[in-house]
Amino acid sequence: MGIIVKKFGGSSVANVDRMKAVAKIIAKTKDQGHQCVVVVSAMGDHTDELIDLAHQISAHPSSRELDMLMTTGEQVSISLLAMTLQEMGYRAISLTGWQAGIETEEVYGKARITNIDTKRILHELEKDQIVIVAGFQGISNQEITTLGRGGSDTSAVALAAALHADVCEIYTDVEGVYTTDPRVVKNAKKLNEISYDEMLELANLGAVVLHPRSVENAKHHRVKLVVRSSFVDTPGTEIKEEKSMENVRVVTGVAYDLDVTRVQVVDLENKIDALADLFTTLANENINVDMIVTSDYEKDRINVSFSISDQDIGPTLKVLEKKLGEQAKVSHDHHLAKVSIVGAGMISNPGVAAKMFKILSDAGIPIHMVTTSEIKVSCLVPKTQAKQAVQVLHDAFELGQE
Amino acid sequence: MGIIVKKFGGSSVANVDRMKAVAKIIAKTKDQGHQCVVVVSAMGDHTDELIDLAHQISAHPSSRELDMLMTTGEQVSISLLAMTLQEMGYRAISLTGWQAGIETEEVYGKARITNIDTKRILHELEKDQIVIVAGFQGISNQEITTLGRGGSDTSAVALAAALHADVCEIYTDVEGVYTTDPRVVKNAKKLNEISYDEMLELANLGAVVLHPRSVENAKHHRVKLVVRSSFVDTPGTEIKEEKSMENVRVVTGVAYDLDVTRVQVVDLENKIDALADLFTTLANENINVDMIVTSDYEKDRINVSFSISDQDIGPTLKVLEKKLGEQAKVSHDHHLAKVSIVGAGMISNPGVAAKMFKILSDAGIPIHMVTTSEIKVSCLVPKTQAKQAVQVLHDAFELGQE
Repeated sequence: MGIIVKKFGGSSVANVDRMKAVAKIIAKTKDQGHQCVVVVSAMGDHTDELIDLAHQISAHPSSRELDMLMTTGEQVSISLLAMTLQEMGYRAISLTGWQAGIETEEVYGKARITNIDTKRILHELEKDQIVIVAGFQGISNQEITTLGRGGSDTSAVALAAALHADVCEIYTDVEGVYTTDPRVVKNAKKLNEISYDEMLELANLGAVVLHPRSVENAKHHRVKLVVRSSFVDTPGTEIKEEKSMENVRVVTGVAYDLDVTRVQVVDLENKIDALADLFTTLANENINVDMIVTSDYEKDRINVSFSISDQDIGPTLKVLEKKLGEQAKVSHDHHLAKVSIVGAGMISNPGVAAKMFKILSDAGIPIHMVTTSEIKVSCLVPKTQAKQAVQVLHDAFELGQE
Repeated sequence: MGIIVKKFGGSSVANVDRMKAVAKIIAKTKDQGHQCVVVVSAMGDHTDELIDLAHQISAHPSSRELDMLMTTGEQVSISLLAMTLQEMGYRAISLTGWQAGIETEEVYGKARITNIDTKRILHELEKDQIVIVAGFQGISNQEITTLGRGGSDTSAVALAAALHADVCEIYTDVEGVYTTDPRVVKNAKKLNEISYDEMLELANLGAVVLHPRSVENAKHHRVKLVVRSSFVDTPGTEIKEEKSMENVRVVTGVAYDLDVTRVQVVDLENKIDALADLFTTLANENINVDMIVTSDYEKDRINVSFSISDQDIGPTLKVLEKKLGEQAKVSHDHHLAKVSIVGAGMISNPGVAAKMFKILSDAGIPIHMVTTSEIKVSCLVPKTQAKQAVQVLHDAFELGQE
């Protein structure tokens, strides 16, 4: 029997009772003869409480001290989970990021893992211990670092890769990955399997079950991922290589993102480096641009549209004002949402985008912007009609059926 | 200007406002040109909250996991204090026990410091940083350990010794060491200075300003200690070698301890090793025996009386039952309290004990047991009359006067 890595998020260990339920899940796997490495996040809202404390002191606390503060959250949950397993009669030991050998860049708040020294973990596994590792944290040159948002998923995948684990199971408060958001579409269906690339598109499109970085890492290291519920004992969704999937669907899921603002720059002078220049400037200000559409309707003038997060509109307008001044007209619209269909089978099925446009227009939903990738089509539609769009697409592509 | 070590307990950093007040105290010392190393405990009741969480899981959680859990308390307070100083414009850095090089035995819950590798702290001081160190914790063979009750005082004194600091200032919620408990005796007076030995006796006698172990360490390493208030800016009490004191008093202070149970063992067979045997057995069960009085009123029988903490009576009776069976009569009394006078000048002043007995008997307070050391006399009196005893002794030895 091989190594199984399990990751439990904050809501799964929010209180002592939840922690006991999690311990039972782990114990069951241990009883089946597997070696268990468990990655845990901080309990429930603990991280937010710590950040709130810091913000009572400073609007911009130093990122080193913030990491020092926040990493206590996982240290609390690993020790309590180890105690819970011990109380049930199992051998268990908790390890902080640095004890578990998780080495990172010397960057605070969003460090990348550079190496995992698995010596200590393997040593504890040999002693028949269940090893409980603090997620989200590592060490760089004797300094405590954190991996940023979604960091515990990243820790779990990196550990699974380093330990050559059979599987990395990500436990969440949902039963797996769905064809779309079950809160919006009643007959949304849980998927039994999905490819890394599909999951990556869905993760980037606002269906936040897994952090995109951890999906990328899993794909890169060929770690088999399973997303499953920490509340209900069901199989969950397997995330794996496309070629090992039983059947490849044309459309696997429908995602939506309400956090979209469109910016339009009209009558920009059409220099050869105009676009490169514009988007480099935005990138340097850490403004994350999603969709981009351009058209050169005249020889010396172009129009550019792009979408950003609602929160980035202030800095974006400031950058554009400083950069362009009177050179171009800038406008923006935050009444839009992004609706996307994702499916690995699109590559070999032409006309999927056309079908999407037809479904939306039949439903009276205008399309304000379109981008496509090999396995995805995204449309900006009015925010007020976004959920209707999700529903009609889910129905028309028959995702709710067996 | 040399290094000054300051230690702030949990009540001094109980919330963000208190932490800001503490930061001002540190800043003032820094502004005077000193290098500052600050040791902090966990905020307010944080440690108790963590212990409570653990006890929701297990009545006897593993001490390794308990240390893993509890050490997060200081890690929270050091990071917040560093942020507070940074927000005020000072360079500050927080260090956990292991980052600060505090090495201990591999024992959990009550490890002793074996070595302090001061490299990192000195390096940060050279960079003009105020160094904030987590008290109460250390590292042993890559494992996180704690020093047990009063551990932050121990950390501070050990750091002061290792860094050859000019002084180790212990900040508390009182203004210094008093002639007796100011809550009991209205005209109790703050002492400007006191010897290590006197402080040691007072610390052991229930006047809990400093943990005895840290006073011992300070004496051993000749660290000048100052106990002072974190709320009021007054000079506090200097604890130093007797020979460097301005004047040595016959009686320096009156202490009392209400947590006393007396155990009497009557008609014990008078073998040569009877006492050694009895008290070794108790020590093996971790029962801390304080006063001991014996009398051999017959050739082959002895009576033994000793005092213990109230909480230890259960295990004590169990041990005695198992050990002695029908061999001796055992009784106990928890209606007693210990009242003590302490003073380095007693050594050269005979009759101090006699004066104490006279004062108590004049006040109608019966004495049930007596022990003496070179600088202390302790009497067991009825618990109901303990505070009256403290008052009459304080008056009679004129401790409330200038």
